[in-house]
Amino acid sequence: MKDAGNFPIVGMVGGGQLARMTYQAAIGLGVSLRVLSASGDDSAALVGADVRIGSHESLDDLLAFAKGCDVVTFDHEHVPGEHMLSMWTAGVVCRPGPDALALTQNKLLMRELLTGLGMPCPRFAEVPAAAPLRFLESFAEESGWPVVLKAVRGGYDGKGVWVLDTLNRETAELVQGLLARGAELMVEEHVPFRRELAALVARSPHGQGAAYPVVETVQQDGICVEVISPAPGLDDALALRAQGLALELADRLGVVGLLAVELFETESGLLVNELAMRPHNSGHWTIEGARTSQFEQHLRAVLDLPLGDTAPAAPYTVMANLLGGTDPDVYSRYVHVMAHDPAVKVHFYGKSVRPGRKIGHVTALGHDLDEVRARARYAADHLRGPVPDA
Amino acid sequence: MKDAGNFPIVGMVGGGQLARMTYQAAIGLGVSLRVLSASGDDSAALVGADVRIGSHESLDDLLAFAKGCDVVTFDHEHVPGEHMLSMWTAGVVCRPGPDALALTQNKLLMRELLTGLGMPCPRFAEVPAAAPLRFLESFAEESGWPVVLKAVRGGYDGKGVWVLDTLNRETAELVQGLLARGAELMVEEHVPFRRELAALVARSPHGQGAAYPVVETVQQDGICVEVISPAPGLDDALALRAQGLALELADRLGVVGLLAVELFETESGLLVNELAMRPHNSGHWTIEGARTSQFEQHLRAVLDLPLGDTAPAAPYTVMANLLGGTDPDVYSRYVHVMAHDPAVKVHFYGKSVRPGRKIGHVTALGHDLDEVRARARYAADHLRGPVPDA
Repeated sequence: MKDAGNFPIVGMVGGGQLARMTYQAAIGLGVSLRVLSASGDDSAALVGADVRIGSHESLDDLLAFAKGCDVVTFDHEHVPGEHMLSMWTAGVVCRPGPDALALTQNKLLMRELLTGLGMPCPRFAEVPAAAPLRFLESFAEESGWPVVLKAVRGGYDGKGVWVLDTLNRETAELVQGLLARGAELMVEEHVPFRRELAALVARSPHGQGAAYPVVETVQQDGICVEVISPAPGLDDALALRAQGLALELADRLGVVGLLAVELFETESGLLVNELAMRPHNSGHWTIEGARTSQFEQHLRAVLDLPLGDTAPAAPYTVMANLLGGTDPDVYSRYVHVMAHDPAVKVHFYGKSVRPGRKIGHVTALGHDLDEVRARARYAADHLRGPVPDA
Repeated sequence: MKDAGNFPIVGMVGGGQLARMTYQAAIGLGVSLRVLSASGDDSAALVGADVRIGSHESLDDLLAFAKGCDVVTFDHEHVPGEHMLSMWTAGVVCRPGPDALALTQNKLLMRELLTGLGMPCPRFAEVPAAAPLRFLESFAEESGWPVVLKAVRGGYDGKGVWVLDTLNRETAELVQGLLARGAELMVEEHVPFRRELAALVARSPHGQGAAYPVVETVQQDGICVEVISPAPGLDDALALRAQGLALELADRLGVVGLLAVELFETESGLLVNELAMRPHNSGHWTIEGARTSQFEQHLRAVLDLPLGDTAPAAPYTVMANLLGGTDPDVYSRYVHVMAHDPAVKVHFYGKSVRPGRKIGHVTALGHDLDEVRARARYAADHLRGPVPDA
């Protein structure tokens, strides 16, 4: 099973950009990363030497993939829970394991568990299939409009989440349409937050934990467009609270690997928004901005190697997501961006360009936050090129 | 020829660790790196998605490999000069080109050219096949013993270089044996240097140059074991002189890509020792220690993209080469090294372990040079494990 030097083989289910960047880290560590990818055109499939084409929804594909891997981990949360259990039963070492990963697939279960652990969360409730509209009205009577409607399963990057300002004909049809198609729904209060934060931690099987600086994430239309590390002006006590909360969660949920906790900062403190148990968009800044990138850290954690130093490499690091524009010839815009700012770092995911699609990210770091933000923003905007008319 | 986003394809001839680390950089840039490797077990062949197995000594293999590449570059200097010219004639964009690369294959030609350019070099001469011993005696009469005997072609990591303390039966047999086997030989004065330095620069086709901080390289038995950036206590004027000399050389020789100039620091100034036109062992520290790694820089240069920032990321960065010991189970020693120093960075090349073979390197950085050196040294020594009895 082991290659020269007894180095292990890590299997990663999913061939997206997270697997691609994990692959870069694996090369340095000398660890073989095998990727299960739906298509040879996926981000990680384009660069990996050991890519198996198959579906994460097929148990046969998953079991064939896992054969010969020392440990299996995940680029996304979409492996069906029953397949996770079957792999586990078959003796596949899955990190994170089925119990932990199940929480990221079911927002209602996640909220119930978090609340049970005493973690601060927005008010929430399951929307009953019988009389859903009356239920929403009464929920909003207490929490006020707007409310946030969520699909219990699936959804990411703003998909599966709807902010309802009120119940009218349009929103009522949305709710009833979703239920008619079999969706399970939940509702949450719309939190009047100051800003969004993310706390990224790693946990290893033997229980070591490591926390990265808490970052601010800036969203547009439900998509993260910018991450600032550390979150500017964040109160030290609140930062420690966020890190402590994420470490405690990782421990209580038995997470192995990375755990990203998305948080709302409100007038009265922190509320947990979402969880992800893998390298996360809010941690891409760590490639240049921290001594150990989140991708290396994830590999160290799932291999039960001691965790790496999370210290920042500069006072401020800003990551800007690079979204596709209308002109697919991104490369021709490289020259200008690199000439304009020789220190900005560009990461491409090998994806075909579509308007609004995340096709890469850029990172800048330095002492002056305003300057660093402007540099990252400029590079991402210029590389995007023309955007569709609003 | 181009993939999504019009990203180019770079071909790299040679599948060693330099190609492996260049591959990591290419993934981030979104550039496809195709590798020509002698074997599927080579360092870069183990990780690349687009690896062609073939010989750099076969023109057919080289031309087939180059087909579809926007530019071809090199992990080593061993492509025969006539093949370089044939590729060039066939319209393959080779960077560096045949003229420049030829200099790294012929130490005598290189010395003659450097001397012609007014670059400071050790005294040297060709050893004639007729009466070589008498020639060596008379050379040593002027420069003193010991002298350095070199094979004009081939040789690296101390191979093809012999320090002769005097002419006796053993050394005479060495010289005559080499000549009898058809080797061309040259002799150089043995420079009483204080230490060895290296100046790493990049040059792009349109003539942009970029210089990294000048480093000190520490050799043992002709193999570089440690690189310190910047060279401690190096006089500013001398550092500028080394950078200027390397930039001028790159320009005068028409180098495209990286140029590493190995230098002797002597009582009376700098002398040029060797040249390499590719990423170089003396630049591995740049992965963590500079804003732009030498591997990214090489890709930017050969693609004629603006060069990246060479500023150091920390006051001191130390790279220690990791040599194989007698116990091949390197991975089992990971745990201790990572637990001992969470901030040290380990790079493995995927090579099977043999005593004395370069199988990876480690990098440490920080403010206190003694501490940083000790950390890098400790990690490399521990990972090596038991060494053969002396």
